[in-house]
Amino acid sequence: MKVDKKAIYDAADKLSNWGRWGSDDQVGTLNHIGPTAIIAAAQLVRKGKVFALGLPLDEKLQSGLFGGRWNPIHTMLATGTDAIAGNQDASPNLRYADDAINLPCQCSTQWDALAHIFLDDKMYNGFDARLVDSRGAQKNGIEHTRDKMVGRGVLLDVARHRKLSALPDGYAITSDELDAVAIAQKVEIRKGDFVIVRTGQQEACLEKGEWGTYAGGDAPGLAFDTAYWVYAKNIAGICTDTWGCEVRPNETKEANQPWHWVVIPKIGISMGEIFYVKELAEDCAADGVYEFFFCAPPLNLPGGCGSPINPQAIK
Amino acid sequence: MKVDKKAIYDAADKLSNWGRWGSDDQVGTLNHIGPTAIIAAAQLVRKGKVFALGLPLDEKLQSGLFGGRWNPIHTMLATGTDAIAGNQDASPNLRYADDAINLPCQCSTQWDALAHIFLDDKMYNGFDARLVDSRGAQKNGIEHTRDKMVGRGVLLDVARHRKLSALPDGYAITSDELDAVAIAQKVEIRKGDFVIVRTGQQEACLEKGEWGTYAGGDAPGLAFDTAYWVYAKNIAGICTDTWGCEVRPNETKEANQPWHWVVIPKIGISMGEIFYVKELAEDCAADGVYEFFFCAPPLNLPGGCGSPINPQAIK
Amino acid sequence: MKVDKKAIYDAADKLSNWGRWGSDDQVGTLNHIGPTAIIAAAQLVRKGKVFALGLPLDEKLQSGLFGGRWNPIHTMLATGTDAIAGNQDASPNLRYADDAINLPCQCSTQWDALAHIFLDDKMYNGFDARLVDSRGAQKNGIEHTRDKMVGRGVLLDVARHRKLSALPDGYAITSDELDAVAIAQKVEIRKGDFVIVRTGQQEACLEKGEWGTYAGGDAPGLAFDTAYWVYAKNIAGICTDTWGCEVRPNETKEANQPWHWVVIPKIGISMGEIFYVKELAEDCAADGVYEFFFCAPPLNLPGGCGSPINPQAIK
Amino acid sequence: MKVDKKAIYDAADKLSNWGRWGSDDQVGTLNHIGPTAIIAAAQLVRKGKVFALGLPLDEKLQSGLFGGRWNPIHTMLATGTDAIAGNQDASPNLRYADDAINLPCQCSTQWDALAHIFLDDKMYNGFDARLVDSRGAQKNGIEHTRDKMVGRGVLLDVARHRKLSALPDGYAITSDELDAVAIAQKVEIRKGDFVIVRTGQQEACLEKGEWGTYAGGDAPGLAFDTAYWVYAKNIAGICTDTWGCEVRPNETKEANQPWHWVVIPKIGISMGEIFYVKELAEDCAADGVYEFFFCAPPLNLPGGCGSPINPQAIK
Repeated sequence: MKVDKKAIYDAADKLSNWGRWGSDDQVGTLNHIGPTAIIAAAQLVRKGKVFALGLPLDEKLQSGLFGGRWNPIHTMLATGTDAIAGNQDASPNLRYADDAINLPCQCSTQWDALAHIFLDDKMYNGFDARLVDSRGAQKNGIEHTRDKMVGRGVLLDVARHRKLSALPDGYAITSDELDAVAIAQKVEIRKGDFVIVRTGQQEACLEKGEWGTYAGGDAPGLAFDTAYWVYAKNIAGICTDTWGCEVRPNETKEANQPWHWVVIPKIGISMGEIFYVKELAEDCAADGVYEFFFCAPPLNLPGGCGSPINPQAIK
Repeated sequence: MKVDKKAIYDAADKLSNWGRWGSDDQVGTLNHIGPTAIIAAAQLVRKGKVFALGLPLDEKLQSGLFGGRWNPIHTMLATGTDAIAGNQDASPNLRYADDAINLPCQCSTQWDALAHIFLDDKMYNGFDARLVDSRGAQKNGIEHTRDKMVGRGVLLDVARHRKLSALPDGYAITSDELDAVAIAQKVEIRKGDFVIVRTGQQEACLEKGEWGTYAGGDAPGLAFDTAYWVYAKNIAGICTDTWGCEVRPNETKEANQPWHWVVIPKIGISMGEIFYVKELAEDCAADGVYEFFFCAPPLNLPGGCGSPINPQAIK
Repeated sequence: MKVDKKAIYDAADKLSNWGRWGSDDQVGTLNHIGPTAIIAAAQLVRKGKVFALGLPLDEKLQSGLFGGRWNPIHTMLATGTDAIAGNQDASPNLRYADDAINLPCQCSTQWDALAHIFLDDKMYNGFDARLVDSRGAQKNGIEHTRDKMVGRGVLLDVARHRKLSALPDGYAITSDELDAVAIAQKVEIRKGDFVIVRTGQQEACLEKGEWGTYAGGDAPGLAFDTAYWVYAKNIAGICTDTWGCEVRPNETKEANQPWHWVVIPKIGISMGEIFYVKELAEDCAADGVYEFFFCAPPLNLPGGCGSPINPQAIK
Repeated sequence: MKVDKKAIYDAADKLSNWGRWGSDDQVGTLNHIGPTAIIAAAQLVRKGKVFALGLPLDEKLQSGLFGGRWNPIHTMLATGTDAIAGNQDASPNLRYADDAINLPCQCSTQWDALAHIFLDDKMYNGFDARLVDSRGAQKNGIEHTRDKMVGRGVLLDVARHRKLSALPDGYAITSDELDAVAIAQKVEIRKGDFVIVRTGQQEACLEKGEWGTYAGGDAPGLAFDTAYWVYAKNIAGICTDTWGCEVRPNETKEANQPWHWVVIPKIGISMGEIFYVKELAEDCAADGVYEFFFCAPPLNLPGGCGSPINPQAIK
């Protein structure tokens, strides 16, 4: 489809979930998940195998391309070397190590909160963008999802489907391709699912030991038309192994991240980025089972526009 | 029992798991959890109800009593007010908010890594404490547990058992009392469990709207003798709603946090602190079911001596 | 004088320096200092005695009363204990310590930049307040003053003049009193001066070892009418030993910090706060010389709305 | 001269200032500056011209080559866009911007404290290196110099003397060359001086707009033999426009930064790095005057192993 400002606003009109779950709703498509879905998802734990989808926080993937983000800074407040030096032995003593972490919420494996992206002057459910100021997000903050990131997960391994280690930069994954992959993988997409799309781009960086322009440069990713797919499927969350989910260069020069303009502010979907899916994908390919129990709690950060996470896929 | 340095070293000798899972093991009692236990734990998801056990990160509980920790600092890197001001409209534009979080790993709801506490010159499994220096923990870092914090959770609601809203400061919960509570609650403690003990202290602070000396002062908590209980039960993790799990004032003046001296470095147990359990406890009291699926992934922080978390209890 | 919104806007009209030094000026009253004044100021170095006016950054004066500021966080990136442990001895080796500091620019002894305070929608020289966004100040940032904080300093020791160790909270220092103190001290206020007013409040906190509500609560300080004095005297900078220079409770309930509304945005004066002046004041009282060479360079922080400083008064 | 471990320890023996100013001295060669020198230095203010030697803190010079340092992080706590949005208008209101800065003390223009470098197990004046732990430096911290960085400054412009815009990487500046430059510049080095050596390397980076390996890679700089010069001249401080003052690659493979091993721990000299000297050097070349009043106060950071600074050279 042709992507331009008009296409963006058309999609915004057609795919709006504003008001769907009440005028004060702040979790959007996570409403698609009900108790029954959670109970059913738990039944997918059949092998007792856990996959951690959080990239190690010492990977230096932030390259300054976007928004002043930095790589996580891990500092120590107390160390074993202090302990051995006898510096903690004032009575009564305790020998210990302590540490701290300072990181942008969007710098590595993360949830974007619904407060993260605006369409013109509004965010999801029609809230005024000005409700997100230097003190944080008064509406649509990540804290509202603190007990919502639980349900059925489905991996759509587009790279493997294409028999590629990684899709090339600029490769746009369409709705049709998502459907084709699901069919090939013999997995059905259901209401309330967390769908994880694998492009292989991240694993290529890890293999090379170089992140290059991963964080903000060109990438394979979802085509703009998948906004319709995301809406129609009534999924709860959409995640990828890339920096920004959607294809880059974008399909238009009239907007930066045109798909984002629609899916977060209008559909109200929780978006997961920079997911590490190597072992999960290998396991799915090996046993042919692409569904699993998914549990990816954000930090309970009031007013947060995102959260670093270590999502768990459990088969 | 009489608690002194001798009692500490006696317990350290008797309760050592060093070498039990090989000389390079770095996850300790999390080895008690196997695939079968995970599959069984998933069966505990019967109501499809999720409880988030992470305290909101804007609670100002750090009071300077211990170790230079600070309250979480949430700052914004981009805001809706910037967007509305038109400051993000250079073409192609994207209107968005971004943020960052800076926090001690031990400042709110958290896992302690096995690198967090030393016994003399060693940490869990006999590793030299000097392996934890200003660059982080080369051994026993939290990253090793990134896919291990999944299994059966059990709440032992000691405060409710005692018919108190909160146990008083200095109240020492013994092994016998833990057993009595389990019996009263009709729940069995099994190998590989994550046991969460509720004292009510945190809820009292929340109700008062004042943290006082919660972070490092007096508190109800586990008696030293429960180190034996923890070891004998072969549990995977031990968690409380207090700052430091064990009773304060400590049962001896010869050591600060004597129970810590044993349970982390020698038993190798993952310890969860400052868990928020109000709604979970109310639900357990209401339906009489004190077991649940537990999923509490740490951030994948290489060399981390702990991690902020938002544990999920799913019934 | 009666202080209300009308008085504020009257003063704003009468005391405006907008355009006085050109439409792109970003340093305001620092323009009052010329080469001749700097040369003359250097002649005030007669004893070769240096006073550091920066409060130690480990003082915990931030109390949460205002704006999410925190106390400085000093962390280590490498330590002597690491060195002694042998952890820095990979060849070729260097044994060293490194550290980092994280602090609000306004948390301790500091300059306020002209970008710090707005009057309605504008900042100094008529620049739009929207030029200060999450990326910093595009106009009136502290970097423009990087070579301007040099000249003649004058201490007006109001507390000592009143024979008090500290003026009481709520004590409003008027223009008349400033003049009276100058006369009593036999010191003339000249164009381009940095005037430092001593209330004694800070020393009282240091003596008690308690900061209480120093940072944002009641305080002695400059009366609103001194805005006229500041303007008429053509001084370059105005500094005090208090948190916010002006008297608190403020002289009106119609505005928070009414004097700030005028002196930074309209007069364009550099304001120094939380100056530590104990020894300087004692020395001035002892030798009767209240003037000195003043050098208080801010960090060269582009877009900064302030800067931590350690001002030097040299007699 | 041949540089090896033996040469380092020989120099350490010959150039020791331990005990010279008493067993508790913590400022080393800053003791060379007395009141008379400060008074005389003030007389060098003849033109009333101020040069700010602090590099802008938004230059991204840290490249990960050394020690986990990061580029300064400037974040906003309140903004003009918030103000314009009306978000600060709760009564009584104040429209303002606030910010924060997070930076390694050694990441840009900086003083190294005497606690920054160790020789074996000791730091300056024989203090045990273990006194510098995760809580900071208990001895030789930067706070002791808070009123000491004032005196006569001298620029030795080696690059201009060599008629080069920048000395090449690996260029070792010897004692003889320092003397030759001083003679050519007609400036005498005196006891208590702050000597600033210009290589031009930094300006080359600024001109290219690329920092490359400036922070930790090859560089022109002081030869090891200048440790003798530094000691013999009784200067107070030594500064350069490079990352680490001394020539890189170092003159030996047996030590990293061999000159540092001696000059900080044994001579006890305050070392300034990453000084921005372009305009100062141009002015000195133009008027032939290479001496000036120098005032470079560190932040008053107790336990600091360094401090970001914006040194002032005043002619």
